Amino acid sequence: MKAIEFREIFKFPENYYGKEVIVEGWIRTIRDSKNFGFIELNDGTYMKNVQIVFENILSNFEEVRKFSTGSAITVKGMLEHTPGAKQLFEIKATEITLEAGSDSSYPLQKKRHSFEYLRTIAHLRPRTNTFSAVFRVRSLAAFAIHKFFNERGFVYAHPPIITASDAEGAGEMFKVTSLDLDNLEYVDGKVDYTKDFFGKPSNLTVSGQLEAEIFALAFKNTYTFGPTFRAENSNTTRHASEFWMIEPEIAFADLNDNMQLAEDMIKYIIEYVMENGKEEMEFFNSFVDKELFAKLDNVLNSDFGRITYNEAIEILKKNNDKFDYPVEWGTDIQTEHERYLSEKIFGKPVFVTNYPKEIKAFYMRMNDDNKTVAAMDLLVPSIGELIGGSQREERLELLEKRMDEMGVAKEDLWWYLDLRKYGGVKHSGYGLGFERLIMYLTGMGNIRDVLPFPRTPNNAEF
Amino acid sequence: MKAIEFREIFKFPENYYGKEVIVEGWIRTIRDSKNFGFIELNDGTYMKNVQIVFENILSNFEEVRKFSTGSAITVKGMLEHTPGAKQLFEIKATEITLEAGSDSSYPLQKKRHSFEYLRTIAHLRPRTNTFSAVFRVRSLAAFAIHKFFNERGFVYAHPPIITASDAEGAGEMFKVTSLDLDNLEYVDGKVDYTKDFFGKPSNLTVSGQLEAEIFALAFKNTYTFGPTFRAENSNTTRHASEFWMIEPEIAFADLNDNMQLAEDMIKYIIEYVMENGKEEMEFFNSFVDKELFAKLDNVLNSDFGRITYNEAIEILKKNNDKFDYPVEWGTDIQTEHERYLSEKIFGKPVFVTNYPKEIKAFYMRMNDDNKTVAAMDLLVPSIGELIGGSQREERLELLEKRMDEMGVAKEDLWWYLDLRKYGGVKHSGYGLGFERLIMYLTGMGNIRDVLPFPRTPNNAEF
Repeated sequence: MKAIEFREIFKFPENYYGKEVIVEGWIRTIRDSKNFGFIELNDGTYMKNVQIVFENILSNFEEVRKFSTGSAITVKGMLEHTPGAKQLFEIKATEITLEAGSDSSYPLQKKRHSFEYLRTIAHLRPRTNTFSAVFRVRSLAAFAIHKFFNERGFVYAHPPIITASDAEGAGEMFKVTSLDLDNLEYVDGKVDYTKDFFGKPSNLTVSGQLEAEIFALAFKNTYTFGPTFRAENSNTTRHASEFWMIEPEIAFADLNDNMQLAEDMIKYIIEYVMENGKEEMEFFNSFVDKELFAKLDNVLNSDFGRITYNEAIEILKKNNDKFDYPVEWGTDIQTEHERYLSEKIFGKPVFVTNYPKEIKAFYMRMNDDNKTVAAMDLLVPSIGELIGGSQREERLELLEKRMDEMGVAKEDLWWYLDLRKYGGVKHSGYGLGFERLIMYLTGMGNIRDVLPFPRTPNNAEF
Repeated sequence: MKAIEFREIFKFPENYYGKEVIVEGWIRTIRDSKNFGFIELNDGTYMKNVQIVFENILSNFEEVRKFSTGSAITVKGMLEHTPGAKQLFEIKATEITLEAGSDSSYPLQKKRHSFEYLRTIAHLRPRTNTFSAVFRVRSLAAFAIHKFFNERGFVYAHPPIITASDAEGAGEMFKVTSLDLDNLEYVDGKVDYTKDFFGKPSNLTVSGQLEAEIFALAFKNTYTFGPTFRAENSNTTRHASEFWMIEPEIAFADLNDNMQLAEDMIKYIIEYVMENGKEEMEFFNSFVDKELFAKLDNVLNSDFGRITYNEAIEILKKNNDKFDYPVEWGTDIQTEHERYLSEKIFGKPVFVTNYPKEIKAFYMRMNDDNKTVAAMDLLVPSIGELIGGSQREERLELLEKRMDEMGVAKEDLWWYLDLRKYGGVKHSGYGLGFERLIMYLTGMGNIRDVLPFPRTPNNAEF
C-alpha cells in the first residue's frame, strides 16, 4: 500500500471515509495523555493538517508519546469521518513509525515567531503556515503566468542573465567576472578585461526586454520569466537585489493592446490563484490582510482606469497639500501619488500613460507632441506601481536621436538598431515584478517575505 | 476587423474558407510577374507560411511588387481553399499595406546559411525555419515541464542565483561583485570584501539543489527551473557558461522513486512536444535528424533500463578494445561508454546507479557497502548523460564525515546540516540540463543553437 498525499485526501475526503490509509508527514504538534494522544500531521502537499489519534493499544505507544515536533513519521490507520468535530475527518492510527526524529532545539515550536526572526531561519520557515502559504501561492502564480501566455500562443524566451552591455541604464548592475581579484592585471591603470572570461566587462541583467523585442519581431508574441538584478543599496520593504520579472513583448501592437494584455493577465492570475489556492488565500484574508478578498474581487470586477500623465498631474496638483512631495508637470509620480490615484480617485487599478520623455527610458516611443512618450504604468491600490511598460520606438532615426540625447552607446546596441531596419513593425511590452505581484496577492508587506532566500545589501545567506 | 493569427487559421482552416480575413506578418519571400505575384508570409505565431496572391487590380500593385524580404505588412483578402495545390489554402489580397520596410542589406535572403554564420546574427536567426522551430520547441518543452510538475502538486521553488557559498563544488563559479575593480581596496594583500555588496565574496549558483532540499523537507515535492552557471573554459558542443536546469526534489522518496519520476517526466515532455509541436517536430525529423521520430518513439515505448555501476563496468570491460578510454572499476563513465551502454547494450535509455563514492558529490547517500553511493545517471542514445541525481545523505553523522573527507566547509552549510536534525527524512532528486533536453528533442548538435543567446568563453554578445 502506498502513502496517500494530503492534497488527494482533501480533494475527495469522502473517497477515504472508513478506509485504511497510509500517510506520511511531519509532526506539527503532538499532545498526549496517559491512554491516548493527538498528532497534527502535515505532509507538505496541502496547507491543512490531518489529525492523527493514537491510543495505548499501539505496541509502541510509549515511544510515540515522546515523538517531538518536526519529526517525520509514517502512519497507518483508519480514516474516519467526524461530522460535527472541528475537523471533517481524522485518522485512527494502527501503526506509527518514526522516519526521522527532530532535535529538541527545533525552533518552530508552538509559539508565534516574528517575520524578522523567521528570515534568519529561511531554511525552516517554509514549514510554518504563513510561509507555506506564501511559497505555494508563489508557485501557483508562476504557473498561472505560464498558462496564460501558453494559451495565447506566446513563445517563452530566455534572454541572457550575463550581459556585456549596460543597455537599459535601468540601474546599478552587478559585475560578473572570473578574474582573480586578489591578483588583478592592469593596463594603464585599468583592469585588463581581455583576460576575463568573456574578454570584456560583463554584468548581471537588469531586464530582458531588449532581447524580448528580438523574439517579438520573430514570433509576434513572446514573454520572459526569469531573474533580474539591481546592485542598489536600498533597504526598503519593496526592493531586493535579485528578483524575478515577467516581460511580455507583442508585435503589431500599440499601447492600447499592451494595456489590454496587462489587464487580462492580472485578472487571469488572480482568478487562477483564488481557485487553485483556496486554503492559502483564505489564510491570508483571515490573518494577513482582512481586506484582501475585497481588494482582489474589486480588481476582478473592474475595468481598469486609463488616464494620461497630463490628466493625472491636473488631479494631483489640486491635492498637493496632501503630499510629502507636491507634483508639477515634469516630476515623476511617487508612490504616495500612485496610491492616491488608484485608491482615492479611481478605487481600482489605473493605467497612467504618456509620461514626459525626460523621466522615461530611451526606447519608449515618442508621441506627436514631442514632449511625452508612449509609456504606461499600472498603479494598484495599496501597492502603487505594479507594471511598467511602453510602446517601443520603432523608427530608427528617432531612436538614434534619443540614444544620442541620453548618452546610450549605439555601438553596443547595433543589433537593437538592426531590428528597426528589418521589418521593425510597431511593438509594445511591459515588465511585471513577480515579487510585487505576490505581495499584492497575499497582502504580505515585505519583499523579503515573498522571496525564498532574499538577497539584499549585506545579505546572501543560504 | 482584427487580424487573425496563423496559429488560429491553421488550427481550423475550414472556418475561414471563402471568408474575408486580415492577416499581418513578415515577408519571407516575394516573387512577381507583370500582372500578379506571390508572397510567402509568416506572422510568427506558427511554423508555416501563408501564401498571399496579389494581382494588378491592387491600387498599389507597383509598390507591392517592390516590397522586400523581411518587411512587415498587413493583408486584407479572401481566404480560398485550394485543394490539390501545394498549400491547402491561400489568401487573394484586396489590400496590402506596408507596416515596416526592410533594408536591402537584410541578411536572411533566400540562400541557406550555416549555423555558424547564423550565430553571429542571433537577433535575426529566430526568423529562420530552423531557429523558429528550435525556440518554439524550447518554449513548449518548458511549459510541458511546468505542467507535469503542477499536475503532481509540486511546488515550484526559486533558489537564489547569487550565493555566498561554493557549496556543491560542482565547478568553477563566476564571481559577483559591486566593487570598483579599477580601485580595489586590500587588507593584508587580499580584497576587502566587507566593502562588497553582500559583505563577503559571492558567486553565481551552479545548482539550486541544496536549497531545493529545504523545500522538499517542507512541501514534500518541489522543483526548480532556472539559470545556472559554470565559469569553465570549455569549448565543446555540449557546454555553455549559462544554461537552464530543472531540479526536482522529493521527500519520503528513495532512488527508485527518483528514477520513476525521471522516466515519467521525460516521457511526458516528449509526448507533449510531439503533440503540440507537430510542424516543428516534423521539420526536425525531415531536415535535422532523420532518425528523430524513431528515437523518440523508442523512448516512449520502452521501460528504461536499470543497471548498477558494477554491472555496467563488467559489461564495458568486455568491450574495452572499442574505447578510447578503457574502463575499470572506479573510473568515471565517459560519453563514449554512456553511449555504448544506451545505444548498443540497451537500445534505449538506461539508468546507471550506485557509483563509487570517490567520483560523486558529498551529499549522496552512502550505500551499505561503504564503497558506493545512491547515485543515478540517466544515459540516453546519441546524447549520453541527460540526468544526474541521487538519494541524499540524510544521516547527519555520515554527511558530516563525507564533508570532512571531501573538504566541504561545514560552517557555510550550517542550514543544510540543520535539515538533518529536524525531520530530515529520506529524500532524493535529480538535475536535468534543459539545453541537453532540447538538443535531444530536436536533434540539434550544438548547445549554441538551442540557447537564444549563448554565453561561452569570450562570447557575451547580444
